[in-house]
Amino acid sequence: MLIHDFLIDRLISEDVPYGDLTTESMGISGIAGEMTFRARFDCILSGVDEAEKILRKLEAEVQVSAHNGASLKAGDHIMTARADAGTLHMGWKVAQNIMEHATGIATRTFTMVEKGRRINPYLVVACTRKSFPGAKTICLNAVQAGGGTPHRLGTSETFLLFGNHSSFFRNEDELFKALKNAAMSQPEKKLTVECETLEYAQKAAENGAGVIQFDKVKPDKLQQWIPLLRKKYPNITLEAAGGINIETVEEYAKTGIDVAVTSFVYTGKPMDIEVEIKPL
Amino acid sequence: MLIHDFLIDRLISEDVPYGDLTTESMGISGIAGEMTFRARFDCILSGVDEAEKILRKLEAEVQVSAHNGASLKAGDHIMTARADAGTLHMGWKVAQNIMEHATGIATRTFTMVEKGRRINPYLVVACTRKSFPGAKTICLNAVQAGGGTPHRLGTSETFLLFGNHSSFFRNEDELFKALKNAAMSQPEKKLTVECETLEYAQKAAENGAGVIQFDKVKPDKLQQWIPLLRKKYPNITLEAAGGINIETVEEYAKTGIDVAVTSFVYTGKPMDIEVEIKPL
Amino acid sequence: MLIHDFLIDRLISEDVPYGDLTTESMGISGIAGEMTFRARFDCILSGVDEAEKILRKLEAEVQVSAHNGASLKAGDHIMTARADAGTLHMGWKVAQNIMEHATGIATRTFTMVEKGRRINPYLVVACTRKSFPGAKTICLNAVQAGGGTPHRLGTSETFLLFGNHSSFFRNEDELFKALKNAAMSQPEKKLTVECETLEYAQKAAENGAGVIQFDKVKPDKLQQWIPLLRKKYPNITLEAAGGINIETVEEYAKTGIDVAVTSFVYTGKPMDIEVEIKPL
Amino acid sequence: MLIHDFLIDRLISEDVPYGDLTTESMGISGIAGEMTFRARFDCILSGVDEAEKILRKLEAEVQVSAHNGASLKAGDHIMTARADAGTLHMGWKVAQNIMEHATGIATRTFTMVEKGRRINPYLVVACTRKSFPGAKTICLNAVQAGGGTPHRLGTSETFLLFGNHSSFFRNEDELFKALKNAAMSQPEKKLTVECETLEYAQKAAENGAGVIQFDKVKPDKLQQWIPLLRKKYPNITLEAAGGINIETVEEYAKTGIDVAVTSFVYTGKPMDIEVEIKPL
Amino acid sequence: MLIHDFLIDRLISEDVPYGDLTTESMGISGIAGEMTFRARFDCILSGVDEAEKILRKLEAEVQVSAHNGASLKAGDHIMTARADAGTLHMGWKVAQNIMEHATGIATRTFTMVEKGRRINPYLVVACTRKSFPGAKTICLNAVQAGGGTPHRLGTSETFLLFGNHSSFFRNEDELFKALKNAAMSQPEKKLTVECETLEYAQKAAENGAGVIQFDKVKPDKLQQWIPLLRKKYPNITLEAAGGINIETVEEYAKTGIDVAVTSFVYTGKPMDIEVEIKPL
Amino acid sequence: MLIHDFLIDRLISEDVPYGDLTTESMGISGIAGEMTFRARFDCILSGVDEAEKILRKLEAEVQVSAHNGASLKAGDHIMTARADAGTLHMGWKVAQNIMEHATGIATRTFTMVEKGRRINPYLVVACTRKSFPGAKTICLNAVQAGGGTPHRLGTSETFLLFGNHSSFFRNEDELFKALKNAAMSQPEKKLTVECETLEYAQKAAENGAGVIQFDKVKPDKLQQWIPLLRKKYPNITLEAAGGINIETVEEYAKTGIDVAVTSFVYTGKPMDIEVEIKPL
Repeated sequence: MLIHDFLIDRLISEDVPYGDLTTESMGISGIAGEMTFRARFDCILSGVDEAEKILRKLEAEVQVSAHNGASLKAGDHIMTARADAGTLHMGWKVAQNIMEHATGIATRTFTMVEKGRRINPYLVVACTRKSFPGAKTICLNAVQAGGGTPHRLGTSETFLLFGNHSSFFRNEDELFKALKNAAMSQPEKKLTVECETLEYAQKAAENGAGVIQFDKVKPDKLQQWIPLLRKKYPNITLEAAGGINIETVEEYAKTGIDVAVTSFVYTGKPMDIEVEIKPL
Repeated sequence: MLIHDFLIDRLISEDVPYGDLTTESMGISGIAGEMTFRARFDCILSGVDEAEKILRKLEAEVQVSAHNGASLKAGDHIMTARADAGTLHMGWKVAQNIMEHATGIATRTFTMVEKGRRINPYLVVACTRKSFPGAKTICLNAVQAGGGTPHRLGTSETFLLFGNHSSFFRNEDELFKALKNAAMSQPEKKLTVECETLEYAQKAAENGAGVIQFDKVKPDKLQQWIPLLRKKYPNITLEAAGGINIETVEEYAKTGIDVAVTSFVYTGKPMDIEVEIKPL
Repeated sequence: MLIHDFLIDRLISEDVPYGDLTTESMGISGIAGEMTFRARFDCILSGVDEAEKILRKLEAEVQVSAHNGASLKAGDHIMTARADAGTLHMGWKVAQNIMEHATGIATRTFTMVEKGRRINPYLVVACTRKSFPGAKTICLNAVQAGGGTPHRLGTSETFLLFGNHSSFFRNEDELFKALKNAAMSQPEKKLTVECETLEYAQKAAENGAGVIQFDKVKPDKLQQWIPLLRKKYPNITLEAAGGINIETVEEYAKTGIDVAVTSFVYTGKPMDIEVEIKPL
Repeated sequence: MLIHDFLIDRLISEDVPYGDLTTESMGISGIAGEMTFRARFDCILSGVDEAEKILRKLEAEVQVSAHNGASLKAGDHIMTARADAGTLHMGWKVAQNIMEHATGIATRTFTMVEKGRRINPYLVVACTRKSFPGAKTICLNAVQAGGGTPHRLGTSETFLLFGNHSSFFRNEDELFKALKNAAMSQPEKKLTVECETLEYAQKAAENGAGVIQFDKVKPDKLQQWIPLLRKKYPNITLEAAGGINIETVEEYAKTGIDVAVTSFVYTGKPMDIEVEIKPL
Repeated sequence: MLIHDFLIDRLISEDVPYGDLTTESMGISGIAGEMTFRARFDCILSGVDEAEKILRKLEAEVQVSAHNGASLKAGDHIMTARADAGTLHMGWKVAQNIMEHATGIATRTFTMVEKGRRINPYLVVACTRKSFPGAKTICLNAVQAGGGTPHRLGTSETFLLFGNHSSFFRNEDELFKALKNAAMSQPEKKLTVECETLEYAQKAAENGAGVIQFDKVKPDKLQQWIPLLRKKYPNITLEAAGGINIETVEEYAKTGIDVAVTSFVYTGKPMDIEVEIKPL
Repeated sequence: MLIHDFLIDRLISEDVPYGDLTTESMGISGIAGEMTFRARFDCILSGVDEAEKILRKLEAEVQVSAHNGASLKAGDHIMTARADAGTLHMGWKVAQNIMEHATGIATRTFTMVEKGRRINPYLVVACTRKSFPGAKTICLNAVQAGGGTPHRLGTSETFLLFGNHSSFFRNEDELFKALKNAAMSQPEKKLTVECETLEYAQKAAENGAGVIQFDKVKPDKLQQWIPLLRKKYPNITLEAAGGINIETVEEYAKTGIDVAVTSFVYTGKPMDIEVEIKPL
């Protein structure tokens, strides 16, 4: 994924609007130094590509041992940057903080994908739009690093019909007629419809839905419904959303869904990255 | 706190680069509607001031019942927006997502503050720079909504001496001499020094430190050290950092510290906000 | 579609970095005036929503008679703005220029859609990414105003396999195996494959393609191929691209394609909008 | 001309907000490749300087054979970029699209200049502000590549009096008095006045105009008026605008004008550029 | 002149990245208040239009008594803003600082213009590009408020030939030939040539210069040269630059120049503006 | 201090929106050249780090002999840039203008610091927020280059209680109670209180102030008050503000204050930098 130059500028300036008062006041800002990043725990790394760009923008020399998506053991070397102490201290926490948050997301995603795929090797773990506001690139990079897939990048290029849309129709007939028209007008896309019942899902499937996304339907019900739908609508993608997390993903995978939709991975403990700064 | 206009623009465009394909394709984007936000759980609300600005920027009419910092019961009304369905659907998830993440942070902060202040009514809960990259304003607003305080807004206007600075000095004498000079050159600031031992803390205190921040020191040790330091350096601020969270905050509060420094509040489950969109 | 505030700022500042030297030097910049926009020709209007936002940003009072997508007769009133003469002259050409370019695109799109739908009432006219660089929002708004559909908003959320991708595979077997895997990993999307022959299209269809986009295939060939493919792959979307324009759209529509993909609408004569500025 | 860094960022992010889904899903994004741009037709090249900067920003290695303004034969090599396939596919259409639009403008401008200069070797072809909104740099670079001149970069640093200004004066006497004052107050500039009649042009010339821009005056009339004005006001620049295009430029050149003002070049067919991407 | 919205955003965020710690910590940020701006000295006001926009952006209610360019007596009311104390304190110094710097510039410009015009009522005081970097809009607004004129807005739309250009020509013949060509190719502009001697000025005038800008030529020499040049080249604009300030402007005005070019006004003491904030 | 990439972009585009018309029209823009910057006067240099980044961004090769903070003699070499003449002329005035303004600030700061420290070797010269709006980075870099210290970077991270805050309290008791609370809630900061009398200063000191900033108090009074306060409150920082400049700094230094707060350095004559451009 592309990490835009202006994003790098923003991430730096958020933490370093002007300089690093501590190194300046201590009189060490001009001394040449070296900053080394290492994994503290086994993890799936992410955020390092962003961190590399941050340190290069600050005009450090950077050597990278592991990129977004790498599987690391505790203690593994990630990246070393050389510059004067002032520059290193300006970049330190910005780089570390992105890596810790992103590696947390990547590792959680990886675990969910692994668990799910032990049951269904083709299971797709799709991560929702509920990433941290202002940090979509970092979060989606991390999701991909962990083997997940973005569910939707935003509202403008994918179709997902919620209950909050349905309320604008007088009855289900009008709703599904509109869905059919939408499918005709968007033949290059699969239309996703959020469903809570089997009956509604069937109507959606008959009226142009290409993806059925079951919302907060328990695994036992899904286990009954999925085979019925598969048989009748072999081309439809079947998804579950709502309550899918690291504990429940296997149970959902067993239901036969194609896609587990989750926001779970975005939140949780960051994954510690060790940073050591030393004079050269 | 100020929520800059350009931040609002970025938050919207991250999720809605062009439009809402679903409402457009379903032919309902021009119908007038109403979108209502309610708390699903008891919580300390945050992100609503940001959400209000987002919805106003999209040209919705907005009525707000509760602002950042409000203490809500499950079911309490937060905000209602009126606009055409297309506009409401463009604003929906952007607004909700910010509120859910921010309310999670605010509520966790509030709980920590409450717990800590039951022990020490003057305890300050200071939240680190480890907020989600790209989202500092949202995170710090949430911290303040919950009764916490930002530890540092960045590297440029506060002084915090880490081990990663110390390595640039040949020995402790030179280090503390530089600290003393820094204190002379920055007489408008309290200099914070990260310490791991009592001895180091005493040297720091004697050489210009205004704040001692103990890093990863266990509460039992702190309980011995704090009274010693208080007696000898009555003007110094004493802080603990590393491992302070909702479970441990009381234990740390008992040690007599002035400030509990934490990154804990930034991560954890978002707090669900219910959103209903209906035609007017 | 959403017209972001920062886009409005850019469009104004591109033409008016500081002020309007002419009104200032002539000593009339403070006189109250009125600026009226009218269609000079029958057209499908676009760019007026952008123009309205521009004039409001300049703090003019604006009254709009016709929005993006309106079908106008020559002489029809579009919009009137009131402000001091300096403001009106700053906004004049910015607003007019956007409307003229956008109305040209919208009108060309409308004509193509009309012509195509006389043959096939469900024909979709999808406009490519080849809009003017820097002006995607204006161009896509115009396409929608004319009844067209954006083909892809960019590279990040849709799949379109070109010959320039195929060259990275040793042979067709590997290529189609990769396509099949891609389809498995992206079950929420229809994968589009650019094809030049019937054989290649069939292989694509059998390996996960959801959309076949024929590139530069003559209508007579398409007329033979489309029914064959329809029969065998009833769920697949069939598209033609390359050389489809206002002259040829009917011929392509007769082939039975679902979607006519075109860049034609983006270029051509702007549609004149009359602007009169008078003192109030 | 200068191509600002932030413009490059915007042009890329407009088409590639996050990544290239196709190369990622096909599993080829990491393979090293080479992308070659060639002219498909004889043309005056433009947009290549912008494209080069785009590809370098994406961290491709770029070799350029021909710069903005080069005269190319069909098949001529323009530029080769080397990078991984994912990067090349992110840059492909952004680069190609700019070059095709810009080369179209440059080639049309060149043809107009050539035709006009066969009649009058000093004829200036000045291109108006009616370039595509959001794309002024690209358009003006192309105009210059083709031998044309920007008429005005915007409203802030040049003076051009339109009928829409005149309406703010009670009568011509007041108008021309104001013009005289404007000329006194702006002695570093030539003031341009849009005129439709000989009489009005003479009054303008006598009251401070340095440039007479005839709007929509037919060549036969100009042929009579120009020599009269030349004789009486030897220092004045004489221009024609309105309806000057590739068909009419010679006829206007014959009238003896100094400058042909046109918006014609901005619109018309982009000039095809061939792009081939291959593994290295 | 136009004050762009993004400039307002930048000016606020430069001083108020997040909030106003003082009002927040003192517990008064929510109290309604009123902030009043008054002139402390007789002055020509500027910066108030910018300040008004800043306070409105912060959502204060603003009433303005005097706009950019107003001539004020010490004690005159300028502007009153109402909002909560937090908002007022965020806007206070940003607004005041702009007004003080800008009013200083406007007042110095006004004095120079007044002094110069007592000698030559048509003297133009043109202010150079040497305004404070990052503050061109504020500075040029102030120049205009004081009755001055911007000399050049930048390098892109005006022609000014310096010695630093001449060094690229082998001899004066080639230089002046190039100047003549430049004049032919830019017939809509007056070409300015920086001169140090009468002879050079004459050559420039004969080869296309429309403006002669004498650089660091003493008034006594100018007094001899100006009449000679006027007689021979009645259409040429004659300017002096270098060392023109509030002390010397009259002496230069006496030489008969049309334009006094100066950077003097940009630097000097800001003009104090009194600000009082009170509860409502 | 960090000079952000986007600041560089803004500084260039403010003066060079598109190109350099003069070099282009003179036909010399492609000739290779060399631009040399030298000090015209003895000075403390600043702005060169910014200028270097500007010239590098324009793709010049740059060699720098002296960095921000260097003490130069008249004639000393500062920087040489090599590029084509067009590029050099685009960068010339942007670079020179920043350096001249910044070097003026740095030199004035240096003189004040020198003068003050001859009296009190530990005197801190703290420069207020009244830097030129839009140019905080350039101004603060210059302050630091001259040995000064930024007083406050903005309102968000430091506490400074003005009279304009006090008006929101019913009486001094409530005010000082709030101050005490503020000190409790902000134990990591020194709270600064603006005072005009000894009595007020004492109350502030007793209620949590860490810094007393005397505003417009004459040196003779300060000379009496400072020793009294020092004795009673040995940990408090004592500052004077209002009327401190290059003439008065010694007098204030003699009073025993720790910090001289001044806005004086920001305004005054820029320091001339000689620039010569020649062909290579």
